[in-house]
Amino acid sequence: MTVAVDIWTDINCPFCYLGKRRFELALAEFAHRDEITVVHRSFELDPTIPAGTSGTVEEHIAHRYGIPVEQAQANERGIAAQAAEIDLPYQAGGRDYGNSFDMHRLLHLAAAHGKQDVMLDGLYAGNFADPTPVFGDRERLVAIAVSAGLDESEVRSTLDDPEAYADDVRRDEQQARELGVTGVPFFVFGGKYAVSGAQPTETFARALQLAWEERPVTIVGDQDAAACGPDGCAVPSPS
Amino acid sequence: MTVAVDIWTDINCPFCYLGKRRFELALAEFAHRDEITVVHRSFELDPTIPAGTSGTVEEHIAHRYGIPVEQAQANERGIAAQAAEIDLPYQAGGRDYGNSFDMHRLLHLAAAHGKQDVMLDGLYAGNFADPTPVFGDRERLVAIAVSAGLDESEVRSTLDDPEAYADDVRRDEQQARELGVTGVPFFVFGGKYAVSGAQPTETFARALQLAWEERPVTIVGDQDAAACGPDGCAVPSPS
Repeated sequence: MTVAVDIWTDINCPFCYLGKRRFELALAEFAHRDEITVVHRSFELDPTIPAGTSGTVEEHIAHRYGIPVEQAQANERGIAAQAAEIDLPYQAGGRDYGNSFDMHRLLHLAAAHGKQDVMLDGLYAGNFADPTPVFGDRERLVAIAVSAGLDESEVRSTLDDPEAYADDVRRDEQQARELGVTGVPFFVFGGKYAVSGAQPTETFARALQLAWEERPVTIVGDQDAAACGPDGCAVPSPS
Repeated sequence: MTVAVDIWTDINCPFCYLGKRRFELALAEFAHRDEITVVHRSFELDPTIPAGTSGTVEEHIAHRYGIPVEQAQANERGIAAQAAEIDLPYQAGGRDYGNSFDMHRLLHLAAAHGKQDVMLDGLYAGNFADPTPVFGDRERLVAIAVSAGLDESEVRSTLDDPEAYADDVRRDEQQARELGVTGVPFFVFGGKYAVSGAQPTETFARALQLAWEERPVTIVGDQDAAACGPDGCAVPSPS
């Protein structure tokens, strides 16, 4: 049976980037990995940032949380060191920040074409592994989406229509609120087992196993409804 | 949270065609329908039919199960009447039968592009709603796949390589055996609640509700792992 894994995430969130990789390391070792479906869900860390705004993330963080810029820079270097432990490229210093609503809308467009995961990888790589700013640069966003396999004209028309896939983003965020999610990444395995934050790979492995073991199945309804088998199609007699 | 619904199915199976529609009627009324992911799984009713074979289904059924052709024809008319009750077009008489392995391979190709559901609808319509035979006609199969939005050259190269997506078909069938599935359609909701056969719409509605209620979530792992929230990215102190 397919087990769905929901992952709430934001492009601005370095631990989402790291958490995705650690989850994938667990998934790669999981015996039933072909039965796992991953759905990325939208969560904006700061929806109040005006669209088109961009800037160096360390200064933004220092200003917003009232810490010295040096401390924000040290935090970035600390995250880069954690990323290096799992062979994840991370540019410590210089990445920008911004409003991620349009990116989340494109992730829902990508989902409709079965390309959500590769699109998210492209956005993360654009933000964390590449020194070129990714926020507030529409053409960069289009290029990332096209690299992920999306149709360029569909990407442009989605960006041109601010309501395209906007309800999908809002629904994800509403559900996160209902779940009490206050930070990301946030993972839910099989609708039942939650993992909060960029936990160690072993934690993801445990959650995969727990969700997988949530069996055997319970039969709902009649056992003799109309069905086809090796002996033909049995039509039950009318009751 | 996303609830996955796995549906084992065969193109040769009229009750799979009807069951899909009844399930969809239940889904359309389900309050959390946007949180449901459907995965179609492969099940060949008769994998021993040589590829390329085709013929009128009533004669095949009559011969195989030792019943008069007239009875097989009456069965088809009975299924057509059930289809009419849910506004599903059904050609009673004249549809063909055949080996569905290549169709299942193409359904897995379609899944990789997020087009599995529309591809399955195209195959069902081709087999049950259209008098033109669909088995043993490669160009018809290509046309259905292209109408579903697949890339023609990818469809042709998949058909040319008999091992392309073949393991995916076999894995689905192996899992059906492990579940004890002997007939299709067979539905599993949230990995836990099974519905066998083309049951009434209300049964599907009940299974959706049962799978959805399989909450709340259980937290796995630390509560204070590295995460980003509205107050910044918290890096837990090393333990």
